[in-house]
Amino acid sequence: MKTAVVLLSGGQDSTTCLYWAKVNFDRVTAVCFDYGQRHVTELAAAERVARVANVTLKKLTIGALRELAGSALTSSGIPVAAEGGYKDAEAPNGLPSTFVPGRNALFMALAAAHAVSLGAKAIVTGTCQTDYSGYPDCRRDFVDAMERALTLAMPSSAGPIQIVTPLMYLTKAETVGLAQRLPGCMDALAETVTCYHGRRPGCGQCPACELRARGFAEAGVLDPAGA
Amino acid sequence: MKTAVVLLSGGQDSTTCLYWAKVNFDRVTAVCFDYGQRHVTELAAAERVARVANVTLKKLTIGALRELAGSALTSSGIPVAAEGGYKDAEAPNGLPSTFVPGRNALFMALAAAHAVSLGAKAIVTGTCQTDYSGYPDCRRDFVDAMERALTLAMPSSAGPIQIVTPLMYLTKAETVGLAQRLPGCMDALAETVTCYHGRRPGCGQCPACELRARGFAEAGVLDPAGA
Repeated sequence: MKTAVVLLSGGQDSTTCLYWAKVNFDRVTAVCFDYGQRHVTELAAAERVARVANVTLKKLTIGALRELAGSALTSSGIPVAAEGGYKDAEAPNGLPSTFVPGRNALFMALAAAHAVSLGAKAIVTGTCQTDYSGYPDCRRDFVDAMERALTLAMPSSAGPIQIVTPLMYLTKAETVGLAQRLPGCMDALAETVTCYHGRRPGCGQCPACELRARGFAEAGVLDPAGA
Repeated sequence: MKTAVVLLSGGQDSTTCLYWAKVNFDRVTAVCFDYGQRHVTELAAAERVARVANVTLKKLTIGALRELAGSALTSSGIPVAAEGGYKDAEAPNGLPSTFVPGRNALFMALAAAHAVSLGAKAIVTGTCQTDYSGYPDCRRDFVDAMERALTLAMPSSAGPIQIVTPLMYLTKAETVGLAQRLPGCMDALAETVTCYHGRRPGCGQCPACELRARGFAEAGVLDPAGA
């Protein structure tokens, strides 16, 4: 009985990973993080996706990201307007950002603790180095190192911990193609939120919306969430 | 200018590390975690120690540990009454425990994010494999793997991240001896809390108190916190 814990953000990539896991594992469960992200619509999207996919969703709270974020943004030298997953980082002068360098390490550590508590050894995440090149914690070499660290952190009976990244080397268009082949996935994608402004359908103007639209266009597929 | 971020729990080991860092680094700052530990006296002790040591203390909140803990305790197969740092784990039938397998990975990830935000590359922690053998995430091989993962997680300009563990191979008696040689450390140790029941002076009966008492006795030193 192979069980996977999927990191579900409520976006396109993690939703595709959830459906990928449903095909590749015997049992699938999801985890999401409430860290004060700018748009509560993300968490609501994760809940809708989990409901549509009929998987359990565990919500974990991390106040620390908000407590750390301001200083991290101003001094880490990380680009704040890059494309991709760090959508709460794009407006340092707006609401308090919750971007923190290396936060995938935190998410993976929590997902691993949850996995071990369920007797699962696999974590599935939409981390992708093709589109997210500004963020070192999206690269597979980081994931490999984290996999090893988490395996060593746990009782040997709980491991080895595996961090599976089905989208790591796919373009956005290829991810759309994958979603099309996964039973039920397109229906769930209708529930996802990608937009920096938390809108569904997206605003169509922000970098996240543009990236998503380009992926669907290149794949020749209509976005089920609308324009 | 070498800066260190010390993980300060308010106990004997982390306080000794704080004073060790004051000797070995140009600038020292501390971080503690509010994760719903059973005894708020621990956080209060960390605040007292930071004040006595004249270092800044950043408190970070992690609700997730409480949200994860119950299930983790019952299914991870980790001993709940082992000696040492996991003092909130000893009473699974009492108040909700906040023990989570592999939680040092979480603490280190947050400390690293804080360090990067300060321009620091070193994290100092009292993790010790001599006394804490029940916990795989207290061993140096885990720390080595985590150091590598966190270095890869951060922009290359922020690293390499170093996780320094001055107590890793010391016995409790040797740690007491080290504390004696570090200027000001014994005064700060008077402020620490080790007891499973959150008492200062300790109850003298619980495994944590016994371990601490044995260390001071073997070193031939009076515990400045009392019996």
